[in-house]
This record gives sequence, structure tokens and C-alpha cells, in this order.
Amino acid sequence: MTSQTLEVIKTTTHKPKPDPEALGFGKYFTDHMLLIDYHSDKGWYHPRIVPYEPLTLDPAAMVFHYGQTVFEGLKAYKDHDENVRLFRPEENMKRLNRSNERLSIPTLDEKETLSYIKELVRLEKDWIPTAAGKSLYIRPFVINTEASLSVAPSKTYTFLVILSPVGSYYSEGIDPVSIFVEDFYTRAAPGGTGYAKTAGNYSAAYKAQERAVEHQRSQVLWLDGLEKKYVEEVGSMNVFFKIDGEIHTPEINGTILEGVTRKSVIELLRSWDLPVHERRIAMDDLIQAHQNGTLEEAFGTGTAAVISPIGILDYKGTEYTINNNKTGDISNRLHNAITGIQTGRLEDPFGWTTVL
Amino acid sequence: MTSQTLEVIKTTTHKPKPDPEALGFGKYFTDHMLLIDYHSDKGWYHPRIVPYEPLTLDPAAMVFHYGQTVFEGLKAYKDHDENVRLFRPEENMKRLNRSNERLSIPTLDEKETLSYIKELVRLEKDWIPTAAGKSLYIRPFVINTEASLSVAPSKTYTFLVILSPVGSYYSEGIDPVSIFVEDFYTRAAPGGTGYAKTAGNYSAAYKAQERAVEHQRSQVLWLDGLEKKYVEEVGSMNVFFKIDGEIHTPEINGTILEGVTRKSVIELLRSWDLPVHERRIAMDDLIQAHQNGTLEEAFGTGTAAVISPIGILDYKGTEYTINNNKTGDISNRLHNAITGIQTGRLEDPFGWTTVL
Repeated sequence: MTSQTLEVIKTTTHKPKPDPEALGFGKYFTDHMLLIDYHSDKGWYHPRIVPYEPLTLDPAAMVFHYGQTVFEGLKAYKDHDENVRLFRPEENMKRLNRSNERLSIPTLDEKETLSYIKELVRLEKDWIPTAAGKSLYIRPFVINTEASLSVAPSKTYTFLVILSPVGSYYSEGIDPVSIFVEDFYTRAAPGGTGYAKTAGNYSAAYKAQERAVEHQRSQVLWLDGLEKKYVEEVGSMNVFFKIDGEIHTPEINGTILEGVTRKSVIELLRSWDLPVHERRIAMDDLIQAHQNGTLEEAFGTGTAAVISPIGILDYKGTEYTINNNKTGDISNRLHNAITGIQTGRLEDPFGWTTVL
Repeated sequence: MTSQTLEVIKTTTHKPKPDPEALGFGKYFTDHMLLIDYHSDKGWYHPRIVPYEPLTLDPAAMVFHYGQTVFEGLKAYKDHDENVRLFRPEENMKRLNRSNERLSIPTLDEKETLSYIKELVRLEKDWIPTAAGKSLYIRPFVINTEASLSVAPSKTYTFLVILSPVGSYYSEGIDPVSIFVEDFYTRAAPGGTGYAKTAGNYSAAYKAQERAVEHQRSQVLWLDGLEKKYVEEVGSMNVFFKIDGEIHTPEINGTILEGVTRKSVIELLRSWDLPVHERRIAMDDLIQAHQNGTLEEAFGTGTAAVISPIGILDYKGTEYTINNNKTGDISNRLHNAITGIQTGRLEDPFGWTTVL
């Protein structure tokens, strides 16, 4: 993609802003969206911001059949001085291209694409909610658009960005969630698409989520696809455990998503001189630590929920309660630190913040 | 779905029919399509045949993000008496619902849905090509349409059927293809979506297909996701081997697709008193059979290609030529029998044919 001029077509009809107390997650969308088209003869072309409107696609468009799609998720915050802040957006652009690569989608110029996203967020800054826990969720995504039933990569794609003012992802907020350890369904196996943010990984997980709900649990803890022995991730979050004063999290191995919040949590913990071990974690070792009394905390991390403490693990019919089903100190401290940096309430010693 | 009246809105502008010699696969579409909507409050409703036209979807429609999609593929043929024939369409309807079930999509009434598909094919019967190897490909599919970024099953879906006059799927036709045995990428693991016809399985395979092409091979032979030792399927076909006079094919195990052509091939072979073993097949055993001179034939089976002989296996850098890279007797006999029954050229002793 050579440097191109961003076309901006503004809407003449602004939507009413939703009630900030009833935002939910990804239910309301702002007045504009960003699009960039791709054709195999031209590369990525015609970046443009246009009024938010439906997409028109041939019923044979490959996205409906063979789903070469990837997406990202990040958030914009408004600080007390009305500055708009993004949290490590370069990391999302990098991961977008890693996902593209896995799905045989042409990569985007990260800097240029990010500059267009910033332009869109600037235009929609009045949509950024300011109350605690609320933000403007940014959803970049790519779809394959060629009208052909041939099982092959598409010749045409569209990259889009839509924006949604959001509240907390989980109704529990920072309260602990109870988790069903999934030992039948598989999220990802080595050589698969586990590390990519692609549609197929999400819809494939719904059966497991149904099973968790049947067991009165709100989320799934995924085990590895090969032996169903090692911990991978929680729902759509990375997972951390505090055992005997030290922090453990599954290593990046190709099957789990490389979360931006995960990375930030590791860097924060190390800056606090807390040892963090990125390693293969056997479920049996967690059970043993629980029995020893050394499994002190567990929590998930992700852009949507930030930090989500885990109060209960339900594994093979036994319920393991962690930290008396209360939010632990580390979870609280991490939540406070990350949301503090994201919203500008706290200093950012890491250079994670982009102020627009 | 209670029995509902099919609405039919006919087009006033008929497209020109494509050159039968340049059909390709899934490039041209007929004048009409079938749609049925779903809402969680109403179930499946409003079956209708309408002019083929673009779909209009919110950019937040879940299909673009979390891809709860399934599809089917079957073919309509015209016989010498101008009768329209379908090949075992009930099997496709059953598999559609197995896929729906895996993707947490509400199932469809199989009989009623098939009756609508038949109605669509009847309406478009002038689009069915009659030359050898050509047919009208029928593509039923389901997409999730709710505009929400919440990672959860959609409340709304649309079931569609589009029709495409097609030629042979592979340019090789019934000539042998050369196959790269994929030992890095994974198509499916136990507990995953391998047995479902869902978008994610297809786009995830493109990287492996790229790798096959880099090795000058036209297709991939998938190995199992756990140990990369056992044969699963070829590209998007099931796979069969003739070893020492008997036929072997991977057993249905949750990771491979349960092909309608696979099932028909097994039933045909058994009707010819040829032993068929559905079992786990180690790649090493195939290599040994090749070295013994007992690996006599190999072929893929699928709706698109029917029978596709395998002339060469490229495994860990060694090329194994099968049957002198010629189409084998069993492949020829099966191809002749199945296409004969499909097109009405041969008697159908199995009751596989639906004449419209």
C-alpha cells in the first residue's frame, strides 16, 4: 500500500447517543466507518471514512462460504482533559497482520492503517463514554468479498473499522467469574488457527460455552487440543495464576491468542518485581496447588474485560474455589494500573499510550 | 418450522446463459435464489424464492466477525429425457443439520427445506448444463446476521440457496493429481469442527494449499491433528486406498467430513463384493505398502470432483508414484458408476436418485 489520501465523507444525519448506563457490548455504533478495499491487481486502495451504512455483498461472496476473515479489538478512552487515548494500538496492528498472514489475506501497512483509524476516532470523539469502565470499542476487521465458490483465497477484500461505545464486557464487572474446565471440545490444535483472531475460532467455541452454561458456569477454560491436560485460555481471554507468590501463564505456543492485555500484564508484574513464568501449565498441577493451598489467585485478561478474576474452577465434576471466590490483590492492582494508564488517571511509564 | 407457504417472486430480467465450455466452478449464478429467515422469537420463517440479488447486511453482522456459518454442496443433472435429477439430497440435508448443531445454529426441517430447494431447481432447470461432466451446483448455506459484537450465538440467521452451472472441479478432470502430504498445518482436531461444513475449516486450509503449490503439488493430504501420523482427507475430498486388492478409507471419527460421495463409494464397492475397511490408516503403513508394491490405487471422492485419482504422494521430501501415475481401474469404474447413476445413464439399484 503506497501512501494514499484518506477520503472523508461526513454524514448529514447524526444518530442519537445511547444511554451510557445501557451500553452493553457492541450494540450501538457510531455515525461513520472506515473502509479500505483490496484487489489482487491493485493492492489495498481507496481508504475512506463514510457514513455508517449496510454492506452490499453478492450471496456468493466468499465470506459467507469460506470465511477468510480476521478482526481486532481495542479501545479509545477520554481523559479528564478531554484528550482521546489509545492503548498500544501498534500491537493490534501487528497482530492483525499476523492473523492476515495465517488466513492468506494480504497484509496492511500498519502505520498508515493506524493513522486512518486515529482519524476515524477523532471524528467520532463525542461518542467516547467517560464514566468509569466505559470506552469506545474499536473493531477493525477484514472480509473476503470475491463472488466465487472456488475454494481458494479471494482476489478481493475489504478492511473495515466500526466503533461502538461500550460498558463492561461481563455483567460481573471485576467480580469473580466461575469457570467450567472444558475437557471435550477443542479450541485450537498446533498447526491450526488458534493464534489468529479469525471468525472460525469464535463460532466453534459456542458449543463449549453452552456446556459451561449448562453447568451454571459463565465461561470456559480451554485445555490443549492434543492431550486435554494443559491450560490454554479462558473464553476469549488469556489466563494467569498466582501460585505461592509467583505468577504463571501459558506460554505463547501457536494455539493461544497473544493478548495485548496479557503482554501488558506481564510487563507490569515484572516492573513490580513479581516473577512471571510463561510456561506449559498442567491442569493437574493447578489442582495440586489448590490442594496445597498455594493457588492464591486466578484471572483472565483481555481488551474487552481488562482483568476478570476467577473465583471457581469446575473440573471433572469438582468445584475448586480460589481466594474464597473474592477478587484477589493482584487482580485489583492490575485492573487499577491498566485502566489507570488507559484512561490517563495514572502516569504511563511504559509509553503505552497514544494521545490523539 | 411449521409447514409454510413458499413465496415465489420471479425475475423480469433473465441473465444470458454462460458459455458451457467456460463454466469453471461457482463463477456464474442463476436468476433466482431461495431464502428462509430465522429469529429466536419466531423460528425459521418466510421461505421465498426471489431474483438473485446482493445481500444487505449491517457491518456489525456477526457473520463478518464470529462466522457462525455452514454450507452444503450437491448437484442437479439433466438426463436424456430432460428429467432433472438430484443425487441423495436427503444426505446433504442431514449433514447440514449436523453442521448446524456443531455451530450452535438452529436446525432446519429437512423435508420441507428440501422441497423448497427442489422448487428452486425446477424453476431454474434451463440453467442445467447437459454436456458430460457438467451440472448445476446447488449451494445451500446459513449465515448469522445479528448486528452485535457480543461473542455469543446470533439471534437471527438466514438460510440461502444459490445455483451455479459448473464444469469439472479440477482442471485435471479424471486424470491423476499429485498430492503434498501436509505435516505442519492442521485441518482439524478431536473436539473441533472437522466434521462440519463451516467456513473456518476452509480458509484455515489455504496456508497448507499454498505450501502444496510451492512444492508443485495440486492438493494437500491432511494428517490427523494429534500425532500427524494418520491420513484424514485430501483437500476438500475424502480419500481411499486400494492395498493388495482391498479398499481402505479413514474411519468417521469427528475430524473428517462425512462425504456423500464417500458413503456412496463404500456402498458401491461393497455391492461389487470388494472389501472396504473404514479404519485409522497410518501414513507409514501406506509407505510400506508402496514399498511392497501393494499400494495399487489411491483416489479422492467429493461432490465437486466426484472421483479424483491420486498419482503422486509427496511425503517428507520423497515422491511416491501410485499406479504409474495413471487413473486406476477402481477409480474409473467408480467414476463411471456414480456419474452414470447421477445423470440417469445407468440404472440406480440403490434408490439414490430423486427425479424432480
